[in-house]
Amino acid sequence: MDATAGPLALVAGAGRLPELVAASLDRAGRPFRVLAVRGFTERAMRRRADAVVDLLDIPGTLRILKAWAPEAVVPAGSVARPSPAALLNAAHAVRNRDILRALAGGDDRLLRAVLALLEENGHRVLGVHEVAPDLLGQAGRLGRHAPDQEAERSIATGRAMLAALSPFDVGQAAVVTAERVIAVEGPEGTDRMLARARTLLRKPFGYGTAGLGAVLVKLPKLGQDLRIDLPAIGPRTIDRAAAAGCAGLAIGASHTLVIDVERTVAAADAAGLFLIGLEVTP
Amino acid sequence: MDATAGPLALVAGAGRLPELVAASLDRAGRPFRVLAVRGFTERAMRRRADAVVDLLDIPGTLRILKAWAPEAVVPAGSVARPSPAALLNAAHAVRNRDILRALAGGDDRLLRAVLALLEENGHRVLGVHEVAPDLLGQAGRLGRHAPDQEAERSIATGRAMLAALSPFDVGQAAVVTAERVIAVEGPEGTDRMLARARTLLRKPFGYGTAGLGAVLVKLPKLGQDLRIDLPAIGPRTIDRAAAAGCAGLAIGASHTLVIDVERTVAAADAAGLFLIGLEVTP
Repeated sequence: MDATAGPLALVAGAGRLPELVAASLDRAGRPFRVLAVRGFTERAMRRRADAVVDLLDIPGTLRILKAWAPEAVVPAGSVARPSPAALLNAAHAVRNRDILRALAGGDDRLLRAVLALLEENGHRVLGVHEVAPDLLGQAGRLGRHAPDQEAERSIATGRAMLAALSPFDVGQAAVVTAERVIAVEGPEGTDRMLARARTLLRKPFGYGTAGLGAVLVKLPKLGQDLRIDLPAIGPRTIDRAAAAGCAGLAIGASHTLVIDVERTVAAADAAGLFLIGLEVTP
Repeated sequence: MDATAGPLALVAGAGRLPELVAASLDRAGRPFRVLAVRGFTERAMRRRADAVVDLLDIPGTLRILKAWAPEAVVPAGSVARPSPAALLNAAHAVRNRDILRALAGGDDRLLRAVLALLEENGHRVLGVHEVAPDLLGQAGRLGRHAPDQEAERSIATGRAMLAALSPFDVGQAAVVTAERVIAVEGPEGTDRMLARARTLLRKPFGYGTAGLGAVLVKLPKLGQDLRIDLPAIGPRTIDRAAAAGCAGLAIGASHTLVIDVERTVAAADAAGLFLIGLEVTP
């Protein structure tokens, strides 16, 4: 795998992901430098930063990367959904309506544009899934519990429905029972969708109850660029799925980041939820 | 059209729909009798009831209908989602796990079962759309405003996505911008989906803003039995779509009930929203 070659440039966005990737690279003995993004990179990674750039300081970023000449650039952590203050700063810096609209869009357009720019400048861009595969969920049963027959039907339904939705720019997750779709994730994200599912599944004489095999199915879109948008779950996802009345979770094996896998599996085991990785084609 | 023949039996469930259907039949000079369902039929229709049955009193219902020998039976208004109290009563009356589960499911299974039973007993069952077509939205522009190019793109996206979702038991509506799907309706219904879309569309630097051509697209599923599940909108739908930041609504022409069409169109005109009926194949 290419990921075992020369030094990397880890571009550290917001959240815990850059730290997890750094730890994974450390474990693998892979050398890397850290490029922090002002206002996004968390404290733990700022301490390790070899350089700091402003969001949208494209010339500065390219200058640093040219000097480092890394084997590949690895973006990790969010730079989408900046705060209004960060947006206003960027507005002063950029004065480019397209980029501002990409920013305000809150979706992947910004990161997509930056990746294209890096590649145009001769950089190779690798995803977290390529350089730190140990952070991804494996195929098969990840915890103690297994789906029953009803849950297997729910998984099949969810899988088919997400495949049908794949051509559209909509969420990559759903809560599904064997008989009906309870919730389809939109831009609100998995946590809020699970809160909605909780309301629908838990109400007395509602659309289902725990035991009817409701499953959180979370899969990448067909052809999704995992460098830009890597599905992720963690202990909190388990807690919220349990609260919603789900019998378990099905994720895309080798296509889903499992944040803190030991705690995530322990949470699933403790809550009586299954957690399985489904084979998916890229 | 068959709907202009002999007398009908209008089975009046909850909500205003039975009253609207009765008024439409009166206007058309079509004779009908009213069968009320205890605990569901609203006061206005209870006054016109020729007979009253208990929910799930199948033998009693069949006896009355046999005596009336109507040209067709027309179910109108909801009997789904009964109150917990009604469910407990029914539980004592029925002691049939399948029917109870259909009831508790809160979806169309109960009505589907009752329709099948009526047909097995030699009754013809017609839908509201067949006997009161004047209550349905027509094709084309229904109000003063028309979709712009961006909204037309949103409509095309919403239409394609709902068609892709059609094989699955999930909502028949979505809020869509030209570039992305903001919300897909699940069992929570159109009003709550619009509340969610409002949060996503209205927040500062959110996923879009009024003017980006967000559209509420509401269409029947392919092959949907409109006798059981007739999509509906009304003045409140317009208000909520406007509050969410939608530019307009696209509904399935001749497949969507428009409750109080004058007020609905007036609300759309006043709010600056377009309202159009799309040709749909049944």
